[in-house]
Amino acid sequence: MRYFLQLAYRGTNYHGWQRQPNGLSVQEVLEKALTTILRQPITIVGSGRTDAGVHAGEQFAHFETDATLPAHLLRSLNSLIPPDIAVYSCFPVRFDDHARYTATFRYYQYQISRRKDPFREGLVYVFTPDLNVTRMNEAAERLLHHTDFESFSKVKTDVLTFDCRIDWAYWQEKPNGDLIFHIRANRFLHGMVRAIVGTLLAVGQERLSIADFENIILARDRRKAGRAAPAEGLSLVEVGYPEEVFYNRV
Amino acid sequence: MRYFLQLAYRGTNYHGWQRQPNGLSVQEVLEKALTTILRQPITIVGSGRTDAGVHAGEQFAHFETDATLPAHLLRSLNSLIPPDIAVYSCFPVRFDDHARYTATFRYYQYQISRRKDPFREGLVYVFTPDLNVTRMNEAAERLLHHTDFESFSKVKTDVLTFDCRIDWAYWQEKPNGDLIFHIRANRFLHGMVRAIVGTLLAVGQERLSIADFENIILARDRRKAGRAAPAEGLSLVEVGYPEEVFYNRV
Repeated sequence: MRYFLQLAYRGTNYHGWQRQPNGLSVQEVLEKALTTILRQPITIVGSGRTDAGVHAGEQFAHFETDATLPAHLLRSLNSLIPPDIAVYSCFPVRFDDHARYTATFRYYQYQISRRKDPFREGLVYVFTPDLNVTRMNEAAERLLHHTDFESFSKVKTDVLTFDCRIDWAYWQEKPNGDLIFHIRANRFLHGMVRAIVGTLLAVGQERLSIADFENIILARDRRKAGRAAPAEGLSLVEVGYPEEVFYNRV
Repeated sequence: MRYFLQLAYRGTNYHGWQRQPNGLSVQEVLEKALTTILRQPITIVGSGRTDAGVHAGEQFAHFETDATLPAHLLRSLNSLIPPDIAVYSCFPVRFDDHARYTATFRYYQYQISRRKDPFREGLVYVFTPDLNVTRMNEAAERLLHHTDFESFSKVKTDVLTFDCRIDWAYWQEKPNGDLIFHIRANRFLHGMVRAIVGTLLAVGQERLSIADFENIILARDRRKAGRAAPAEGLSLVEVGYPEEVFYNRV
């Protein structure tokens, strides 16, 4: 049987989602806990990677097992894993439902605090210089007119194309001045949201014009774009799947 | 000159507000930083103590100095103190304005999360048993009919009276099921909010009736009340002063 897990994590203490030799990953923590509970080696596949320090308000993953799930799987799992990872549901899916390939969109938010915030340390990027938010939104709107985002992709990558269909990309200004960048797309390239945010911050500081921003997209060259914004402000907040995936969810 | 400071802190890593021999306090961190910046010994007086692990979304304190404040006092101060304490303003007040004695009310919130929350570890009390919130609010309303709260005060205390004028005390249920207890009063006794919350949780679990709760108040005996709820859920969120205190605030 194949199962989906719905979970959330604070990325601060992890070397990202993906298992890797030189640092603890969220995937490794979950695989070890499931292996302990189900008493057989379990591998999980996430909807996508998140980088070191990046958070997930919602992430999905799947795993396969022929074991019967124990009655209180979620309770056991949550008490076995640290407080910065929470698993909210586990439900059976069809064999061709795949956490990564069946996903139809990913929705990220990037949070900027305009002042020191003792309660959100590591969860927001504290950035205090003046910003022209209207200009940042005019530039963000240009993203919707393009599909090739090689300029915002890490150079070392094994993807076949740099094409992404962006559904929305805009800055929300909260009453207290804090900013949230919302971006949803069918797929994202490695480092893409942080490179876009970093470049839009240069637009907001009037170091780049809207035309400069569009020329950066057209250049298909990562060196033209701005510095990546820090990981701490970034969260994966929603992953979309066709409704049928959830038919067996309890 | 006497100055007021407006600040906030995450209490997780501190042995409370008040300076003490066997652990780091918020007061000590601020006094050391101000002493460094102003190059003279500075003592500060807070609006009131908060216990170890208790947070403050808003706290006020005053200090006196004959030194001229440097131009970028807030920036220097915030870079000298750790990220879990933030000072938002510093303004001169009259000599008889006192952070503790001039305060007219204190407003606390107690936050309960109904599920594991990776983003608010240490900021909420995770409590999952079923609760009858209507009943908890009926009991909370009884608090408004009394003024002596010895039953909810730590036994070792040097206060002259146990009288408090409670302005409001109620539970708010959020759409996701999380609970916030709101309580405002002219003063609070040591450990009072946590003892009230712990006792109201017993009412919510139907281990105590509304009449039991009122009898606990009338008993004036801490042993009759419930166990104190954990510090992590509690935050001081507002301290009230007469408007004149803020006349010189910039």
